Amino acid sequence: MNYMPPHRAMRYLLTHSANLFELKKYPKFTNLSDSLVDDIIEGAAQFVSGVLAPLNKSGDVQGIKMGANGVQSAPGFKEAYQAYVQAGWQSISACEQYGGMGLPQLLNIACGEMVYGANMAFGLCPMLTSGAHKAMEIFAPAEIKNLYLPKMITGEWSGAMNLTESHAGSDLGALKTKAIPDDEGRYKIKGQKIFITWGEHDCAENIIHLILARLPNAPEGSAGLSLFLAPRYLVNEDGSLGEKNNLKAISVEHKLGIHASPTCVMEYNDATAWLIGAPHKGLACMFVMMNEARLHVGVQGIAIGERAYQGALLYAQQRIQGDVCGADGQALAQATPIVEHADIRRELMDMKARLMAGRALAMATAKAVDIANNSSNEQERMHAHIRECLLTPLIKSYGSDTGTHVASRALQVFGGMGFIEETGAAQHYRDARIAPIYEGTNGIQAIDFIGRKTRKDKGNGMQTQIAELEEMLVQTKAVQDKYKLGCAVMYLQIGIQSLKDGLALALAASERESLAMAVPYQNLCATVIGGALLIESVVKGMAAQDTYAPIMQKLTWYHSTFVLSQAPAYLEQMRAGDGPVFGLNVSNLADL
Amino acid sequence: MNYMPPHRAMRYLLTHSANLFELKKYPKFTNLSDSLVDDIIEGAAQFVSGVLAPLNKSGDVQGIKMGANGVQSAPGFKEAYQAYVQAGWQSISACEQYGGMGLPQLLNIACGEMVYGANMAFGLCPMLTSGAHKAMEIFAPAEIKNLYLPKMITGEWSGAMNLTESHAGSDLGALKTKAIPDDEGRYKIKGQKIFITWGEHDCAENIIHLILARLPNAPEGSAGLSLFLAPRYLVNEDGSLGEKNNLKAISVEHKLGIHASPTCVMEYNDATAWLIGAPHKGLACMFVMMNEARLHVGVQGIAIGERAYQGALLYAQQRIQGDVCGADGQALAQATPIVEHADIRRELMDMKARLMAGRALAMATAKAVDIANNSSNEQERMHAHIRECLLTPLIKSYGSDTGTHVASRALQVFGGMGFIEETGAAQHYRDARIAPIYEGTNGIQAIDFIGRKTRKDKGNGMQTQIAELEEMLVQTKAVQDKYKLGCAVMYLQIGIQSLKDGLALALAASERESLAMAVPYQNLCATVIGGALLIESVVKGMAAQDTYAPIMQKLTWYHSTFVLSQAPAYLEQMRAGDGPVFGLNVSNLADL
Repeated sequence: MNYMPPHRAMRYLLTHSANLFELKKYPKFTNLSDSLVDDIIEGAAQFVSGVLAPLNKSGDVQGIKMGANGVQSAPGFKEAYQAYVQAGWQSISACEQYGGMGLPQLLNIACGEMVYGANMAFGLCPMLTSGAHKAMEIFAPAEIKNLYLPKMITGEWSGAMNLTESHAGSDLGALKTKAIPDDEGRYKIKGQKIFITWGEHDCAENIIHLILARLPNAPEGSAGLSLFLAPRYLVNEDGSLGEKNNLKAISVEHKLGIHASPTCVMEYNDATAWLIGAPHKGLACMFVMMNEARLHVGVQGIAIGERAYQGALLYAQQRIQGDVCGADGQALAQATPIVEHADIRRELMDMKARLMAGRALAMATAKAVDIANNSSNEQERMHAHIRECLLTPLIKSYGSDTGTHVASRALQVFGGMGFIEETGAAQHYRDARIAPIYEGTNGIQAIDFIGRKTRKDKGNGMQTQIAELEEMLVQTKAVQDKYKLGCAVMYLQIGIQSLKDGLALALAASERESLAMAVPYQNLCATVIGGALLIESVVKGMAAQDTYAPIMQKLTWYHSTFVLSQAPAYLEQMRAGDGPVFGLNVSNLADL
Repeated sequence: MNYMPPHRAMRYLLTHSANLFELKKYPKFTNLSDSLVDDIIEGAAQFVSGVLAPLNKSGDVQGIKMGANGVQSAPGFKEAYQAYVQAGWQSISACEQYGGMGLPQLLNIACGEMVYGANMAFGLCPMLTSGAHKAMEIFAPAEIKNLYLPKMITGEWSGAMNLTESHAGSDLGALKTKAIPDDEGRYKIKGQKIFITWGEHDCAENIIHLILARLPNAPEGSAGLSLFLAPRYLVNEDGSLGEKNNLKAISVEHKLGIHASPTCVMEYNDATAWLIGAPHKGLACMFVMMNEARLHVGVQGIAIGERAYQGALLYAQQRIQGDVCGADGQALAQATPIVEHADIRRELMDMKARLMAGRALAMATAKAVDIANNSSNEQERMHAHIRECLLTPLIKSYGSDTGTHVASRALQVFGGMGFIEETGAAQHYRDARIAPIYEGTNGIQAIDFIGRKTRKDKGNGMQTQIAELEEMLVQTKAVQDKYKLGCAVMYLQIGIQSLKDGLALALAASERESLAMAVPYQNLCATVIGGALLIESVVKGMAAQDTYAPIMQKLTWYHSTFVLSQAPAYLEQMRAGDGPVFGLNVSNLADL
């Protein structure tokens, strides 16, 4: 199955949803232009479909191997990685001072979607490198930045993120890896980390590990974690590679999917390391990396969903079966491509609509990141930062849940063929399933969203978002007849009311109640905000007479009636509170 | 991960939901007793957990192989199959005349759930054998029955169902396999069939194929299909095996899951065959087999979901992580088994509640089958038959969708470990995914349900079901305070209203509209009826002072607030009709 990046949809949303060119007012982005954006989008589309997509299936089948010199990439991956580096795709949104292109995160996630859609297993390596160098840009000392960033920004050296230990996943406070200072201002790392994505491989000449560890006498819990940098090969002062550091992958996991992405158990045996950021402030540093990764994982969900959708659409156009008609439900002999069968058509529309809402949500998040990082106006920056904080768990969870859901529905369109590995639909179903888990499970996202992001500021941030939606609703009502948005407006109004009621419930809830309603609350907010973004993009696209606006209008019609319409159902689940959730004792969960 | 069949839940539902002992009024079932039921349930539980469950993972890893003598089962499967046959589990609900135990389908599906939960790949072989011998009991000539049924009912010979061809899956009318009469009243079958589950293997000494094929000059479409029997080895008049028939598996599929179940491409090269039933009436014969299989596939979903749930519950009790508390959303150092974390607890309750509703729905279906097949009262029989027809697509779709959903949620509870194959959660996720597809995709079930089962009789059958639910609601209201069912009654009332409105929409819809709303309608009906069955079982269990009734009451509380409460959302999707579904032209589905 081929993959064609949805570049038209990206261009449409960049223009009419994320308003990319608004960013031109910031000095860093004055050179943004239509032609630059076209070059990047079209260039990336060409690269990923020509170089990365063809390795998707072979990477799944052949996977990575553990050889005498450590992890060996799947055949073709090393060459593809070199081509990726040489073409400059790693550096899109990286800092210009160290050789990056300094373009908006908005463009970076558009390219990211293409890379992940073409080859999700491959795409994790650049994603982690990007997260690592961004954390380093902020927190690393100048000499470290000078030595490492230029090579990481090109991708010649890749990055990896070392958090999890076997007893500590969601609960980072329980980490045990130690860092002992030596006499030269460096540290020795000792410990074992698991689930380290692209922790070892042969694509890049060096691998730069960022590691959470504890200094001697550090406080317990997450307040005692510091961030360290340990390269696979030590780096000489002139930037050349020195001897091998005392760290290595001791095994790789046999996983459900993303077989070409090495998931390593890393052993640090007095590995030489440098402190990044202040002692005991490692979690804050790591969160820079993690927040970027969370946005990108949401994008991965959309990407893999899009690829799965494309496969299902193509199959539905080629597969001929008798259409079912008549109240007797008998199959008629009328042979028709199944894309014309109503139930299959509904499946396809459903996938496309959910993906488009997720894509708009990802772009809204990236836009907030760009403003928060680039505005010189304190109030604007704070406003964007709050929006970024709110939208990050939403896109991470909605994007990854949507990817998993769409991959499953796409497989269903293939019928029995979907269950056969050769078809390719099954790989998407397997690959997609990791996204709701890593970089913080979607349950953890929900707890973050209802706790730190909603209740901690007494709902002020969410209230601002809701006020903006209400303003948008008023503007949309004024043009609802002109642009045929009656249905959308009706469901948006209901959705906004559900949001308000949901927020009130979230704020009034007891601690445990709030945790029990966290996931329905997260789903409610993502559904309504995603729906609103689509509606807004129709209004703007129609006003601009964009060729594709009528298509987006139809898609939004579907989204409103089938997806946005479900907002009150999530609210209903929130109302249940924690009573029914804790109705049974643990011992009774196994009874009956 | 171990598997413990949920025998207490089965016993509870058999007694208070399906009212198993009501069947004693039929002559065939007068000997039903508590001790007989206990013996069967406990015996099956012991057998499956001791013999079948231990082969589940090794079967997945090692799978079947294609050897010189055809398909070779996964290691241990042949011995397990022999043990299954010797213990007599194949014959539970089979006809006594040919050696079966003649017990109700209700007990058969309880045992079935245990077999599928222990080893889904294994369980498909007995399931198909059972479907085949039931179709033969009704339609085969006496000499065929005498020759084949005794061996099939013990399981010494297995059965297989040959429908699909590469160009004809859901659309059986397009089948091309031919059957040419010879001079001795037999036929020669020529053609190729795909996706033939357990079509060839080395567990049973013979394999009896039922095959849909066309006689010369048969009408086109599904009205020209006849059913034939072709054994792998020809059977001599004394029942001994003769020479090999001209049929064989020419390849096996490499699948996403159920690796130990051979999915064969079968080649019939003038295979000797016998006609079963009347010429051109093959589809009606096959539907006897298929309806039984549809019920069992729904049960498979529940079974695999239950096993996945058990794994997640065990892990959640053992996995210690800091619980999240406080409005700041910070992880506290308070180490707690994650089963105590509110979001994980909600996941577990959700799985358990959905599975229990599915189990009740399966039993309601099986009960209807038993009454329809055994009542001497014409009106009672017709009523039960209509109920069976309505519930079959509901349990097939709800059970299999629930299995897939629960397997995914169970994997999520494991966090990163869920994505590692070794854990076992991933196998359930892969295995479960076939159930919404085979024996008619769930989309096909929905089309059957809204067309043949609802619109064809102008909604009369559904109206009867709804009237019974309303009657049940009245009775429940009378005891809602006593049994703490206030919440459940409220959502049931809303659910029944949604059913009525949904039925009205289904009846008023145009042809294409009805097909576009088929899946939401199916989900609506399954959700409300499943919820109602749970509520009813609480009322009956409480009245009987069953020890487990309070547990079921708590589970039903959860189900009402989190699942039954979603009924209006499905109705809302039905309201959308086919406009938004067909809003975009096919060419626009790839645009943007």
